[in-house]
Amino acid sequence: MRVAVIGLGSMGLGMARSLLAAGHEVVGCDVNPAACAAFKAAGGAIADTPAAAAKGAEALVVVVVTADQTAALLSDDVLSAMAPDGVVISCATMAPERALALAARVATTQRSYLDAPMSGGAARAAKGELTFMAAGSAAAFKRAQPALDAMAGKVYELGAEPGKGSAVKIVNQLLAGVHLAAMGEALAFAKRMGLDLGQVFEVIKASAGNSWMFENRAPRVVAGDYRPTSAVEIFVKDLGIVSDIGRGARFPLPIAGAALQMFLMAAAAGMGADDDSSVTRVYGRLAGLDLPGDKADKA
Amino acid sequence: MRVAVIGLGSMGLGMARSLLAAGHEVVGCDVNPAACAAFKAAGGAIADTPAAAAKGAEALVVVVVTADQTAALLSDDVLSAMAPDGVVISCATMAPERALALAARVATTQRSYLDAPMSGGAARAAKGELTFMAAGSAAAFKRAQPALDAMAGKVYELGAEPGKGSAVKIVNQLLAGVHLAAMGEALAFAKRMGLDLGQVFEVIKASAGNSWMFENRAPRVVAGDYRPTSAVEIFVKDLGIVSDIGRGARFPLPIAGAALQMFLMAAAAGMGADDDSSVTRVYGRLAGLDLPGDKADKA
Repeated sequence: MRVAVIGLGSMGLGMARSLLAAGHEVVGCDVNPAACAAFKAAGGAIADTPAAAAKGAEALVVVVVTADQTAALLSDDVLSAMAPDGVVISCATMAPERALALAARVATTQRSYLDAPMSGGAARAAKGELTFMAAGSAAAFKRAQPALDAMAGKVYELGAEPGKGSAVKIVNQLLAGVHLAAMGEALAFAKRMGLDLGQVFEVIKASAGNSWMFENRAPRVVAGDYRPTSAVEIFVKDLGIVSDIGRGARFPLPIAGAALQMFLMAAAAGMGADDDSSVTRVYGRLAGLDLPGDKADKA
Repeated sequence: MRVAVIGLGSMGLGMARSLLAAGHEVVGCDVNPAACAAFKAAGGAIADTPAAAAKGAEALVVVVVTADQTAALLSDDVLSAMAPDGVVISCATMAPERALALAARVATTQRSYLDAPMSGGAARAAKGELTFMAAGSAAAFKRAQPALDAMAGKVYELGAEPGKGSAVKIVNQLLAGVHLAAMGEALAFAKRMGLDLGQVFEVIKASAGNSWMFENRAPRVVAGDYRPTSAVEIFVKDLGIVSDIGRGARFPLPIAGAALQMFLMAAAAGMGADDDSSVTRVYGRLAGLDLPGDKADKA
């Protein structure tokens, strides 16, 4: 089928390649020329504008960072350029009410909308093994199926109401963000107590203190390698969405709130574009620890 | 070998049984007659006092809750009753400095001391598959080996300095406590957003938001079953130790601090002896949610 992928960042590029590999006709679009060049080099086609990419698209995969960027892309021009029965597959993490509003907007053009945030990271995006948390009409699911088959290892179908996918993703991000900040707190605390971080990693990984984020991110702290695979700013954004929803719903979130503050401290210390495991360095600098890889630029 | 097990609670009973099953001569002791009866029924011997249990013991396994209880047990009477080359295997979660002090105390009697907190829960205790985080002299490890072989699936040897085992256990408890409080916050928030908790459990379990504690405890919340397998008070204690160490070392622990407050809220609400997943019900009651199993007694 004809698929447009808007956003060729670390996730979008892998997804576009997976779609190509599955035999679909894929047109990509990104504001970053280097991202476009990378997809061209992988054998993909590039369009200059989102509307040109969307021309005749049976599926329009939107892989940008925010709800605002998604809303700006879903203009009349773009939507009317799609195939008349096309489906928008919206992948950004956003508040459920934003997903609902976008679905309503798309419905006015007779196209369908799949609320489809994802989990898995760039490595699994490149292998077509992402997990999608998806909600939308039966028609939206049916139309999106061939594209999802190419991009996903697993698709959780969370009902017909757009926003349910986003809500589950938000719960996931609350936990992932807290677990990551807790990893930083725990490893820096371990260092303060004189423990060997590599040894701590091995023991915790096999104990009740383990988490997906600990297992995935702690090796970066042990190695002192803070080159970004996912930036601190992503959790400033995602825990910010969590916090906004909680405040709006009058729902207290003291643990997520504390974690958000730690990511804000990391961003305030100039680590916003560094790897999100940099939250550990905030503790390290506050307490004057010689963490691996963070001695040279210690404040 | 001859082994005494002091403390026959949910962990100690399983450990004493595993020692029996491995062919050791095991004498148990507990202030609770029901615990003693359970070990007798399993074929074990019971002594009336810790000193009587320790008589001739080549290994003395202390499985009580606190450092204070451990210190009170390791009296001159008890230590001098042990075999002259006996080893104390100390399993309570405690601050590293308490473990160091206990080791020094035991050394004055020429017995050796293994700082050996554990992870794994009652089910793995019963199967002899606990994880030990152990530190002590080569002599202490050698003497303890046959007993550890019977009780452990895995023993991490963390060096010769008592306190290192306790320090790693403390880092583990920081993470486990935070992950558990985060699980409560996330599931209650999911309920507030109108999500199906069983569905949320399935998705998160397979996503980046997963943790050992989430996977282990969330099913209790989904089922609404708060009968204690591990009580709220255990995390009040363990996160209290974490908090004390941080305060003493001038090390900030904002995430663990927020988690401790949530367990204190659960204890304040009368759930101290309930399952530790009850931290979820604190959010549920604050926000007036109809969580499974928590409608009838809602405040």
